[in-house]
Amino acid sequence: MKIEIINGPNLNLLGAREPGIYGNQGFEAYMKELEKGFPEVSFKFSQSDIEGEIVTLIQAAGVRSDGLIINPGGYTHTSVAIADAVAAIKIPVLEVHISNLLSRENFRHTSLTGRYCRGTIMGLGLDGYRLAVEAILEILK
Amino acid sequence: MKIEIINGPNLNLLGAREPGIYGNQGFEAYMKELEKGFPEVSFKFSQSDIEGEIVTLIQAAGVRSDGLIINPGGYTHTSVAIADAVAAIKIPVLEVHISNLLSRENFRHTSLTGRYCRGTIMGLGLDGYRLAVEAILEILK
Amino acid sequence: MKIEIINGPNLNLLGAREPGIYGNQGFEAYMKELEKGFPEVSFKFSQSDIEGEIVTLIQAAGVRSDGLIINPGGYTHTSVAIADAVAAIKIPVLEVHISNLLSRENFRHTSLTGRYCRGTIMGLGLDGYRLAVEAILEILK
Amino acid sequence: MKIEIINGPNLNLLGAREPGIYGNQGFEAYMKELEKGFPEVSFKFSQSDIEGEIVTLIQAAGVRSDGLIINPGGYTHTSVAIADAVAAIKIPVLEVHISNLLSRENFRHTSLTGRYCRGTIMGLGLDGYRLAVEAILEILK
Amino acid sequence: MKIEIINGPNLNLLGAREPGIYGNQGFEAYMKELEKGFPEVSFKFSQSDIEGEIVTLIQAAGVRSDGLIINPGGYTHTSVAIADAVAAIKIPVLEVHISNLLSRENFRHTSLTGRYCRGTIMGLGLDGYRLAVEAILEILK
Amino acid sequence: MKIEIINGPNLNLLGAREPGIYGNQGFEAYMKELEKGFPEVSFKFSQSDIEGEIVTLIQAAGVRSDGLIINPGGYTHTSVAIADAVAAIKIPVLEVHISNLLSRENFRHTSLTGRYCRGTIMGLGLDGYRLAVEAILEILK
Amino acid sequence: MKIEIINGPNLNLLGAREPGIYGNQGFEAYMKELEKGFPEVSFKFSQSDIEGEIVTLIQAAGVRSDGLIINPGGYTHTSVAIADAVAAIKIPVLEVHISNLLSRENFRHTSLTGRYCRGTIMGLGLDGYRLAVEAILEILK
Amino acid sequence: MKIEIINGPNLNLLGAREPGIYGNQGFEAYMKELEKGFPEVSFKFSQSDIEGEIVTLIQAAGVRSDGLIINPGGYTHTSVAIADAVAAIKIPVLEVHISNLLSRENFRHTSLTGRYCRGTIMGLGLDGYRLAVEAILEILK
Amino acid sequence: MKIEIINGPNLNLLGAREPGIYGNQGFEAYMKELEKGFPEVSFKFSQSDIEGEIVTLIQAAGVRSDGLIINPGGYTHTSVAIADAVAAIKIPVLEVHISNLLSRENFRHTSLTGRYCRGTIMGLGLDGYRLAVEAILEILK
Amino acid sequence: MKIEIINGPNLNLLGAREPGIYGNQGFEAYMKELEKGFPEVSFKFSQSDIEGEIVTLIQAAGVRSDGLIINPGGYTHTSVAIADAVAAIKIPVLEVHISNLLSRENFRHTSLTGRYCRGTIMGLGLDGYRLAVEAILEILK
Amino acid sequence: MKIEIINGPNLNLLGAREPGIYGNQGFEAYMKELEKGFPEVSFKFSQSDIEGEIVTLIQAAGVRSDGLIINPGGYTHTSVAIADAVAAIKIPVLEVHISNLLSRENFRHTSLTGRYCRGTIMGLGLDGYRLAVEAILEILK
Amino acid sequence: MKIEIINGPNLNLLGAREPGIYGNQGFEAYMKELEKGFPEVSFKFSQSDIEGEIVTLIQAAGVRSDGLIINPGGYTHTSVAIADAVAAIKIPVLEVHISNLLSRENFRHTSLTGRYCRGTIMGLGLDGYRLAVEAILEILK
Repeated sequence: MKIEIINGPNLNLLGAREPGIYGNQGFEAYMKELEKGFPEVSFKFSQSDIEGEIVTLIQAAGVRSDGLIINPGGYTHTSVAIADAVAAIKIPVLEVHISNLLSRENFRHTSLTGRYCRGTIMGLGLDGYRLAVEAILEILK
Repeated sequence: MKIEIINGPNLNLLGAREPGIYGNQGFEAYMKELEKGFPEVSFKFSQSDIEGEIVTLIQAAGVRSDGLIINPGGYTHTSVAIADAVAAIKIPVLEVHISNLLSRENFRHTSLTGRYCRGTIMGLGLDGYRLAVEAILEILK
Repeated sequence: MKIEIINGPNLNLLGAREPGIYGNQGFEAYMKELEKGFPEVSFKFSQSDIEGEIVTLIQAAGVRSDGLIINPGGYTHTSVAIADAVAAIKIPVLEVHISNLLSRENFRHTSLTGRYCRGTIMGLGLDGYRLAVEAILEILK
Repeated sequence: MKIEIINGPNLNLLGAREPGIYGNQGFEAYMKELEKGFPEVSFKFSQSDIEGEIVTLIQAAGVRSDGLIINPGGYTHTSVAIADAVAAIKIPVLEVHISNLLSRENFRHTSLTGRYCRGTIMGLGLDGYRLAVEAILEILK
Repeated sequence: MKIEIINGPNLNLLGAREPGIYGNQGFEAYMKELEKGFPEVSFKFSQSDIEGEIVTLIQAAGVRSDGLIINPGGYTHTSVAIADAVAAIKIPVLEVHISNLLSRENFRHTSLTGRYCRGTIMGLGLDGYRLAVEAILEILK
Repeated sequence: MKIEIINGPNLNLLGAREPGIYGNQGFEAYMKELEKGFPEVSFKFSQSDIEGEIVTLIQAAGVRSDGLIINPGGYTHTSVAIADAVAAIKIPVLEVHISNLLSRENFRHTSLTGRYCRGTIMGLGLDGYRLAVEAILEILK
Repeated sequence: MKIEIINGPNLNLLGAREPGIYGNQGFEAYMKELEKGFPEVSFKFSQSDIEGEIVTLIQAAGVRSDGLIINPGGYTHTSVAIADAVAAIKIPVLEVHISNLLSRENFRHTSLTGRYCRGTIMGLGLDGYRLAVEAILEILK
Repeated sequence: MKIEIINGPNLNLLGAREPGIYGNQGFEAYMKELEKGFPEVSFKFSQSDIEGEIVTLIQAAGVRSDGLIINPGGYTHTSVAIADAVAAIKIPVLEVHISNLLSRENFRHTSLTGRYCRGTIMGLGLDGYRLAVEAILEILK
Repeated sequence: MKIEIINGPNLNLLGAREPGIYGNQGFEAYMKELEKGFPEVSFKFSQSDIEGEIVTLIQAAGVRSDGLIINPGGYTHTSVAIADAVAAIKIPVLEVHISNLLSRENFRHTSLTGRYCRGTIMGLGLDGYRLAVEAILEILK
Repeated sequence: MKIEIINGPNLNLLGAREPGIYGNQGFEAYMKELEKGFPEVSFKFSQSDIEGEIVTLIQAAGVRSDGLIINPGGYTHTSVAIADAVAAIKIPVLEVHISNLLSRENFRHTSLTGRYCRGTIMGLGLDGYRLAVEAILEILK
Repeated sequence: MKIEIINGPNLNLLGAREPGIYGNQGFEAYMKELEKGFPEVSFKFSQSDIEGEIVTLIQAAGVRSDGLIINPGGYTHTSVAIADAVAAIKIPVLEVHISNLLSRENFRHTSLTGRYCRGTIMGLGLDGYRLAVEAILEILK
Repeated sequence: MKIEIINGPNLNLLGAREPGIYGNQGFEAYMKELEKGFPEVSFKFSQSDIEGEIVTLIQAAGVRSDGLIINPGGYTHTSVAIADAVAAIKIPVLEVHISNLLSRENFRHTSLTGRYCRGTIMGLGLDGYRLAVEAILEILK
């Protein structure tokens, strides 16, 4: 069972940037926890600040993995290209946001990329990724 | 540990209504599964078609329970009153939607009630409730 | 043949309230005329000021009747919950409005609840209900 | 008793065009049925694809007939000129639409021409015309 | 002289909920003060979380009282039904809001229910109710 | 000196239709007055209910006349085709409206056709045509 | 105790202008009544048609008075400058409108200047000023 | 017969400023021509850059003159205060604009002040004032 | 093989009108070139300034031809009727625009009529028609 | 003669992804056909998922090629940067879309990048590229 | 070399008003520093709360000075009159804002007056004026 | 003292592209001047057409430099990712635009990236960078 996680721009700063909003744990540390929690899953994690690289990563994940979790960061609200990439692949894709976008600025209240995803989990901090893994395992059963 | 679940209008029809969108399992049957899965949690479940009753239920949950899961159904997009009730209580509140609202009609793309919730889980079918319970357990740890 | 009529908020005031807009005949008196006009139909009439009660009534009508006429009053323009209830049942549903909403304030120019109804009759006073009954009889033929 | 019916653009194609939306009966055939159903009424029927001809027809109907039924087709949503023509005459005018415009594309959800009509009947197929005739007869009583 | 006060959803929480916005005095305690201040007035106070119950209460007030004060809470911004109820009665109706809605979220900046009221008093805390009583006494003089 | 006047839909009804808005003098009668007032001008007057005929008339006027006055009636607010025809000719074109569109419904507050005209005169009744003739004479001096 | 009242443009016409909307009592006459009603208060009243003068007057009131009542008239809906002046002073400021702006034209439905005021009283005629004085006395207690 | 002309901000620059848009004749020179053309009229002309002064001038004109011509310049699109002043007086008021606002930037396409005027003349250069005088003479006949 | 071309309003002026935008070749001359270039195609060309005539022409083309090229001119942006006519026929329809609408005024940036066409070619001058013919030939292969 | 083709994100998936919308031929295979069809043209083809790489490619094409065909995929609707790159080069640029964007989701109905292109061809499948080559050859003649 | 600085409403309060946003130095004190920093420049400074006075000041500056710096305060977002005054003069005009308007309320995010200025400097506190002087010196070189 | 400058897409073309808007000096040449003007500053300059690379560069600058100047070019109006990167770092960031965006197309009138910057300088050509350096030096004092 292969599950891939793709994080978008600025999410490499997790743990350092605006801890009031994003918490203070780095993502690499969190990935280790996650891998411990799901020994049956082989994870692949990537992060990119570049919209088009995320498109490429999504396409690749569609071929080589069984499920995909994306957090497109700031591209969530504007990227038709990422949305199209999600629509083009057949494995289940979930969108995760660490903070609750609905309680932040208005321009963060809609998700363009979520339109073609299976579902969205947001506002639950890094734990949202664990829940997304569980959801994918359930879907793939 | 007490977790309360409040479902909004038409969610009593689950399993019967539009199975293409909502699946074909009734909520009561699902509640039994849920209770089995979390023996340490004492669940309380209510459903109401009436916006103001949901307000009253949320207020009550805020006093007597440790966590709350709401699925406000059609009131998600229009109810300032339910949003205010969530803002008025102190326990963690999660919003769950069975279908992915972002891939349905435009008037379903925003959530007014989600603004004061801790987070949202949507598009994952009834499994979204299980994930929400897990999320609350994590928050309350 | 069972046809149900559900009136929304303030429609209990018919005959008393703003006669320039709504005419001066009470609905109960009108129901008697209607029943006389269609002896082959068994009518059931309800009125509620409460959005969620109307949702519940629509669900019930979907099970126990052959056709349904709704006049959601002020909820016409804002109620996703009533729209969802209409979408969830299988009998033909018609929306009736006593006044011509298109010649009143702008916020009355669209109908959210009409989206999932079979059709709409508006502006023809109480006679709109009679026409709706005829339309349902034609549909059910 | 003279009642006039004016159909707008593309309604000459009834019975041939998109039967899923408009049914498969031609309007001329339907007119015969209608005339049989109301022997006391003298009907006059016209169809035009041209917005301004419909304006002229409405003006003429206002002088020579007792009631008018219009289906402005695609002009419903954009024609101030037809709306003005309706406003300029004194006989009762009803608007009929064969399909339920509220469940089609967004640009069909409002009616500019309906603003000055007495009322609207929509979504009930060709039977909407019969109901409109009945409504006019009731108004003229 | 009978004056009625109808409070909407969540206003039962006054004194407990978000004291930074709403102050810390409960409404029942405040009612006692109010009654002391206006011995010539017979007050009737109700609170409901349910939009339709508020509609019903307004209709009843219109028959049995001389003046009415409403604070529709979260329904202020969305309820055509409450607005219609106010329009349907003949006694003077005043709208009161405890906080200044204009300095809160954008969706609170307009009032649909205030459109048919005589006037609005907002931002003055519970004292707004006293002022509304005075205003009604002046109107009824 | 040739000046042409083109009136749009429903303006043939002047004097008969809604005299509160449009006054009670017919246009033909008015034309006679106008011709008397400007003996040095050779007038040509047309009226059409048909948008495209107005386009054709404007094109013709551009070739055979020295100045043009248009009152596009209901097409004022929606006709790109008439606007394009005005843009395509070289003689001065003035737009006249009998009533003050700014004090009527919102959809009459903008003019699409006026964008390529030299100027607009509105709200001054039929006298607006006389003023427009004077303005053209001044321009052509 | 010093309370200042600043009226905006056209409010000098009170009693003369549109009595259906604004009543028929002049403001100077009303000021005398007001002074009689509150002998413990020293009032200062100004009126200006000029937006910037109102800004200056508000700044001055912020220094020399204990409370301020403004009726910015037509500037209510457009003046960032007046709103900024209110935000810049520290005494309590109340906004009063004689008519109910919510039942007039759409462009009167929002208040920009009210955003930084303590509260608003509207629709209660000149009596709104008396109530505002009472409210300020209560605030300053 | 007294006719007053009130010009708004920047119109003192006529003849100097942007001659491509506004022509190259100063207004004082033009006033002399105008007075010659209408010897029976006693003119009064004012110009102010200050919105509130224009309000005051309009009020004064309403008392001392028989007709009023305003060109509110940049205030045309934003001034509720000037619109209210026009609504408050009883003599006929015409709005004149030298350039065709409909062919300039979008924010110049609507007129707030024109809403309560009798009519508007625009795009005809300084000659618009002469036509406005003629129109007022006709109205006052 | 029959291909029909229908041009909308003002396109008869090609070669004369605004050559900066539309070029300076008349359409009849261009048709001769086109016919020479495709000897295997039997062309039929019509032009009309009248929206409804274009509707009628499209209906006729749908019956008698194999492919259709429309340039609805100014009706492109507003005509539901033409869009409906395109939707009602079964042969491939292409929309051609001589100029690049995206670089002109905002109201030209969307096409209502293109929604039901097979495709659009714009900005390539008269050569767009040749390309459209080629495209239809390819589709019909 | 050098013509360059730049495809945007997800267009590498042609032939595999959503064949109902995009057809089932891969782009490389299509390029071979294209080169055969135009032996006099030297083609250069690139594809990138990255917005900024497309900007760089467009700049380079502007220097080294005679014509450019872009299909910016999902960036069509949001990329000011690509639009600016097109505006910055002097060779003719055409935009091609395989599907008819006007009959898909609303957010695909406008093109930001097309604003500075010479023209657009859309809805004609891969054949749109051939037509674009023909158009460029015609322009360069 | 003469450079003029014109400050708008409420900027006289600098140093006293909301120091968190505007800092705590008065403008007169700052002017002295500025004059010391640019001994070769003869400065003229004015402040007015009145929109029209600012218009007049801008016109005067256009004649008597070599460069102009304006901070229109609250008029920035609404004043067509000030924008027109800037457009009417020929010396370089720069707009300065002390705070970063983009990080404040939405209604402060656009500048109408900046449209005809040469440039804008904002968010840099009082130092923005020094930078503006430097910029003007550079432009005038 | 280290100051970093990051230019966005198409800004490598400075001096070559559209000199009417952007001037005719290349940025590298300008950098040399800048370095001469501030010998105490160690500059680092980068340019990228790729949104995500700019994100990465901003993050790096936040760690290694004392101040940052960004000109995000076309990403200014659409990039939440760049805005987030600015919000995530702690050194002062200034936004510079060479042209005055407020006098160009509407879609350039707002800046998303400027929201979290300290300030903005625009419209002053390349000299805007020098002023930004001065502003940063002042901030860092």
